[in-house]
Amino acid sequence: MTIFSNAMKAASPFKTNGIRLASYLSKALTVKQFGNPLDSLSLESSTIKCTEPSQVVVHMLYSPINPADINTIQGVYAVKPQIPFVCGNEGIGRVVESCKSDSKLKKGDLVVPRKNALGTWRDYVVASEDDWLKVPSDLSPVTLATLMVNPGTAYRMLTDFVDLKPGSVVIQNGGNSAVGQSVIQLCKHWGVKTVSIVRNREGIKELKKILQEMGADHVLTDEELKSTEVFKSKEIPAPSLALNCVGGRNALELIKTMGENSTMVTYGGMSKQPLTVPTAALIFKDITLKGFWMTRWNWLHDKDGQREHLVNELCSLAKQGVLQSPPHTLVHIDSWITAIEGATDSRGLVGTKYILSFEA
Amino acid sequence: MTIFSNAMKAASPFKTNGIRLASYLSKALTVKQFGNPLDSLSLESSTIKCTEPSQVVVHMLYSPINPADINTIQGVYAVKPQIPFVCGNEGIGRVVESCKSDSKLKKGDLVVPRKNALGTWRDYVVASEDDWLKVPSDLSPVTLATLMVNPGTAYRMLTDFVDLKPGSVVIQNGGNSAVGQSVIQLCKHWGVKTVSIVRNREGIKELKKILQEMGADHVLTDEELKSTEVFKSKEIPAPSLALNCVGGRNALELIKTMGENSTMVTYGGMSKQPLTVPTAALIFKDITLKGFWMTRWNWLHDKDGQREHLVNELCSLAKQGVLQSPPHTLVHIDSWITAIEGATDSRGLVGTKYILSFEA
Repeated sequence: MTIFSNAMKAASPFKTNGIRLASYLSKALTVKQFGNPLDSLSLESSTIKCTEPSQVVVHMLYSPINPADINTIQGVYAVKPQIPFVCGNEGIGRVVESCKSDSKLKKGDLVVPRKNALGTWRDYVVASEDDWLKVPSDLSPVTLATLMVNPGTAYRMLTDFVDLKPGSVVIQNGGNSAVGQSVIQLCKHWGVKTVSIVRNREGIKELKKILQEMGADHVLTDEELKSTEVFKSKEIPAPSLALNCVGGRNALELIKTMGENSTMVTYGGMSKQPLTVPTAALIFKDITLKGFWMTRWNWLHDKDGQREHLVNELCSLAKQGVLQSPPHTLVHIDSWITAIEGATDSRGLVGTKYILSFEA
Repeated sequence: MTIFSNAMKAASPFKTNGIRLASYLSKALTVKQFGNPLDSLSLESSTIKCTEPSQVVVHMLYSPINPADINTIQGVYAVKPQIPFVCGNEGIGRVVESCKSDSKLKKGDLVVPRKNALGTWRDYVVASEDDWLKVPSDLSPVTLATLMVNPGTAYRMLTDFVDLKPGSVVIQNGGNSAVGQSVIQLCKHWGVKTVSIVRNREGIKELKKILQEMGADHVLTDEELKSTEVFKSKEIPAPSLALNCVGGRNALELIKTMGENSTMVTYGGMSKQPLTVPTAALIFKDITLKGFWMTRWNWLHDKDGQREHLVNELCSLAKQGVLQSPPHTLVHIDSWITAIEGATDSRGLVGTKYILSFEA
């Protein structure tokens, strides 16, 4: 039991109209220096409580480990928080205390972070009520924990760059990534054809079957892409959108398949190799190259209602069964080393998303 | 004298309302097989005349040799005409005969090709009046001969991709190319700052001086770009537009200087190396990569009035002295070997544009 008795509370720092505020013993995965995650992270405990009337106390339920979190710990991500900081960008929590009586968020509400780099890898978070977005309570918490970053990225990339219609073709590498799976699910729902490129691996047949059952039209390994006849034979039209999270030679193979006046959106660089773009593709095929970063999108659309709209859309798609939770492994915060080891496994896409759990 | 007497004319193939049509002995630089220009080109003579009432006969005055012409002869350009064909995409000519009395074009009108791959490397051209655009007669023919392709490309790239304002910065490689010089001239006129990258060469000081007198703000060699402080010191803002005709490592150096949410437009690949694009530039700096091809633009805007508008704009800018003719060498069609040798000189940008002349 992590909630202290109200009697333990020190003098309130602000007027609470008689409401007595609780203190919480919170465990937080904290970064004190940038570097290798296993060396850089430590689980720190501290007592926290509201210090401003605008705040709420949220008990996190689940927080996934995303690639961007690992890069943030390594100090190589575009957002470099001031040290020390609590890691984690995504997750689902439940409001356990509103620090004023007329708060927009009430005890029991399910919330996801609105603010970037809020630090979700901890069991209790005290933050402004404006740092959270309320989400429906009739979806599974695991689904909600993983709905905003990866399915959000897939949704935006499929809607913001090219006017896709039923029958349009989207090609993507990293087809088995969390974003890749959401792309497959959304395209299936919208009648858009997908060509998903995956790395050859043990169990490739089973992986193809899983993705096909998810709605994938064509699943090809890197090698199969080079010799496939599906484009040459006009079995499917040339892709009007390509989604790239790999870079290097792999992205070039995608570009070769793309149609005139098409767009490639890059949202990751797993190969750590830059993109190689033939001049002729730009000039004569009129291909456009863009990047997408969910964090920037959130910054840009924080005030215009589009963030709330996206969250509602994603929840609605999850409720319809269009967006399904990725295969995942829940690991209790106390066993965080297991979770980090799994998420940074050098074999890469091992097919499960590691999610920290904060149940007592 | 190349005009045959009317008396030599054979039976007219169409009703001419009594107008008697002339025949012309035309010399044309013709490609009979793709390959090395000196081997592939030959000067062919033939007798030509109108065969349709919609046609006009144009006496070419000047036709420049552009890089795209060389690539077309080599058979490596995106447009591959059917063999045999007369080479040449650009030039200025004078109407010497309208084949019907109510033609839009009258004898004496100056015209530039509207149709792509019309074959301007010949002294007489018979083509539909719709294949030509009339241009003002108060500009020098040499200026008009070189105004549509390179200044046109510069104009469109500066206006179609980024909303440039006075004080905005454009960076370009190939700063001494025909397009590069037009970019400098137009930016100077519009109050936009330019950073032009050129290759180090003999006479680099003189070249820099010429470009600066043309209006260039910063002229840097490839090496100087790597160590320049103008961006780090905030002496000038980060470029919002980059224009690339080189590719490879050179384009990467441009990308490094570019600001957030900026655009690189590629219109050539002189290094014959593909572009190398860091993933982070796309995702975190939100850089967009596009291509530009004047021929496609002409196709797209052939019917909407924009082509005529562009021609009028370019002529107006030339009349104001904003756009100046590039340094050039006029070579008579009979000495075409000299012109081709000069234009394909392995030293590349030797600083003069070769223009074929058709004066008797």
